[in-house]
Amino acid sequence: MSALTVSCPILVAARDHVSLGHGSGGKLSAELMRDVFLPAFRNSTLERMDDQAVVAVNESRIAFTTDSFVVKPLFFPGGDIGSLAVHGTVNDLAMGGATPLFLSAAFIIEEGLPMETLRRVADSLGRAAKACGVQVVTGDTKVVDKGSGDGVFINTTGLGLVTEGVSLSAGQARPGDAVILSGSIGEHGIAILAEREGLEFESAIESDSAALHTLVRDMLAATHAIRCLRDPTRGGVSSSLNEIAAQSQVGILLEEAAIPVREEVRGACEMLGLDPMYVANEGKLLAIVDHSVADDLVEAMRKHPLGRDSRRIGTVTASDPGWVTMRTLLGPTRIVDMLAGDQLPRIC
Amino acid sequence: MSALTVSCPILVAARDHVSLGHGSGGKLSAELMRDVFLPAFRNSTLERMDDQAVVAVNESRIAFTTDSFVVKPLFFPGGDIGSLAVHGTVNDLAMGGATPLFLSAAFIIEEGLPMETLRRVADSLGRAAKACGVQVVTGDTKVVDKGSGDGVFINTTGLGLVTEGVSLSAGQARPGDAVILSGSIGEHGIAILAEREGLEFESAIESDSAALHTLVRDMLAATHAIRCLRDPTRGGVSSSLNEIAAQSQVGILLEEAAIPVREEVRGACEMLGLDPMYVANEGKLLAIVDHSVADDLVEAMRKHPLGRDSRRIGTVTASDPGWVTMRTLLGPTRIVDMLAGDQLPRIC
Repeated sequence: MSALTVSCPILVAARDHVSLGHGSGGKLSAELMRDVFLPAFRNSTLERMDDQAVVAVNESRIAFTTDSFVVKPLFFPGGDIGSLAVHGTVNDLAMGGATPLFLSAAFIIEEGLPMETLRRVADSLGRAAKACGVQVVTGDTKVVDKGSGDGVFINTTGLGLVTEGVSLSAGQARPGDAVILSGSIGEHGIAILAEREGLEFESAIESDSAALHTLVRDMLAATHAIRCLRDPTRGGVSSSLNEIAAQSQVGILLEEAAIPVREEVRGACEMLGLDPMYVANEGKLLAIVDHSVADDLVEAMRKHPLGRDSRRIGTVTASDPGWVTMRTLLGPTRIVDMLAGDQLPRIC
Repeated sequence: MSALTVSCPILVAARDHVSLGHGSGGKLSAELMRDVFLPAFRNSTLERMDDQAVVAVNESRIAFTTDSFVVKPLFFPGGDIGSLAVHGTVNDLAMGGATPLFLSAAFIIEEGLPMETLRRVADSLGRAAKACGVQVVTGDTKVVDKGSGDGVFINTTGLGLVTEGVSLSAGQARPGDAVILSGSIGEHGIAILAEREGLEFESAIESDSAALHTLVRDMLAATHAIRCLRDPTRGGVSSSLNEIAAQSQVGILLEEAAIPVREEVRGACEMLGLDPMYVANEGKLLAIVDHSVADDLVEAMRKHPLGRDSRRIGTVTASDPGWVTMRTLLGPTRIVDMLAGDQLPRIC
C-alpha cells in the first residue's frame, strides 16, 4: 500500500471507528488485538495468540476458548449457526490438543425472532454437541429490542482437557517443518456468500462445517511431533499461516499446485474475484510438524473421513521470517500476505 | 392472570416470537429454558438450574459460567459494560462457592463504534479483572454491520475452582433455613433506568456493581453450612428466591420490614411504579443457610465492606412449597410471584 492511499479518508476513518474489517481475522483484527485488547488484558497466556488458552488448574491442563457467532444467514447449505457454534469451539479446543468436554451457550436474541427459528437453532446446537460427545452445561439468554440485533447471535465457550505430553502453539514452528492441510479449501465462505446473495452455481456448494476433534485424536495417536494446529476459519489458510509465521518468526513456503480447491469453489472465486486462500473453512486444519513424521502423519490423517484429502502443502523456512510465500502454478513465487480487512463479512 | 387475559393477542404473540420479556429472568425466561433450551441440551448439570455449572475434570471441581452483557447505555453511574461483564461472571462463579481464576471475553461490535469507546470499555474490563485477581486469557471479536447490533455486546465466561467441601445449589434449601441478604436492593436497575431515560433524582443513584468473591470467601471461612448463594440480578430478589423455592420445593417467608431499600431507590420506585423486589442488583447476594449458623454468618458478613448491611430477611418453610410470600409492613402476608416479563429491559 502506498503512502498516498494511507491518507485516504476511508482508511483513516477505519482507525477512529470500528469497521467490518476489524472483525475479519486479517490485519485490522490483529491491530485491534495489539492496540486495544492486549494492553487492556495483558498476560502471557493471551500474548501467545493461540486460538485457545491452556491454563493449569491443580494438576490438569485445561484448554479454554470462546467464540461468538454472527453468521448471516442463520441457515445455509451444510449447516446453521447452531451446529457452527459447536464445531467452531470444539475445533479451537482440538487445535490446542485437547479433548473437548463441556460447552457454555449464550444467546443474544433480537426481539421478534420466530420461536420456531430459535427452536431449530437450539436443536441443531444440541444435536451437534451430542455428536461431538460434549455437554452444554451452562447458558445465558439476553433479548435486545428490534433493530439492536440481527436474529440471533450465539457465543459458545469450551472447556477441554489437554492430552498428556502434548503442547501445541503458533510459536513453535521450526525451519524444515512440514505444513500439512487436511483437505480442500474455501467451501464454507463460498457456501455462505452464495446463500446470502442468492447466487446459483452449476453444482451446489456446501459448507465444510465439521468437528475435527476425532481427526486430531487420530493424529496425536500417530505422533506427538506436531508443533502447531490451526483451523483456517476467518481469513482462510493465508491468515492462519501468516499468524504462525509471525509468532514463530519463520518463513513459510507453499506449493500452489498442492493446495486442493474444488472445481466449483475455484469457479465461484474466479467469478467473484476472490482468492480461495483467504476464504473461510470450518472443517479443515493445518498442521506444522517435524518433517521426519510428515509422511506417516498424512497417511494416518487419510484414514479419517475428514482427512481423506490430506497432503503436504509447504515447508517452514529460515529465510523470510514472518512471511508466507507461494510457488505459483506458473512458476514464480509470490507473497501471500494477510488482507487488511474482509473479503466476506459475517461468515461465522 | 385470568383466563381472559391469556387469550390477549399480545400475550399469544409473545409465545410465537421472542419478546423482551423472554430475557427478563422472569416467567417467560423460565418458559424459554423449559420449552426450548432444556429439551435441546438435556443433561443433569444444566437441569440443576444454577447460575453456574460445576463439572469434574480429573480430581478438580471446576465452576463454569457464561453471561452476555447488552446493557444500555454502555456507561452508567457506578460502572460500565466492561466492569459489569467482569463482576457479573465473577459473581456467578462465587455463588457456586468457587474461587474465580480465568475469564474469556468476546466482543460483538457494531460497525462504526468509536474506537475510543471500545478502548474505554476494554480498559475498564481489564482493570476490573485485575482488581478481582482473574486473568482474561482468551477472547474473540466479531463486527456486525451498522444496524445489526447496538454499540457493543460482551460475553464473559468464567472458570473457577470450587472450594473443597463446599457444595451450593438452588435445590438444597430446607425448611427452617434462614434467608440472608447482604445489603440494600434495587440500586443497579434504578441507576441504569435513570441514566437511560435522563431522570434526575435529588441524590444520584449509583449502580451497586461489585465483585462479591471475597465476601463469599469470608462467608465460607465462617461456615460451610451454606446451602445456596444467589446474586439477585435480572428479576431482582423476588426472582432469585422464586427459583430457589421451586428448585428446592420449599416455601420462603420474607419480612418486608427487614429488607433494606435506600430512600432514593424507594422514592424512584414509587414515582415509576416499580417494585424494588423485582429490580436488578449487581453487588448483592442472598444466602440460604442452616438456621443454627445464621447469626454468626451475618456477623462475619458485616465485617466485609460489601456486607456491612447484611441481615436475615426471612425463613424457609415446609408450607407453600414453590411459593415466596412476604409479611408486609402493614401486617398481611402477600405472594411475591415471579413477573412474566420485564420491568426494565437491558439492565445487564
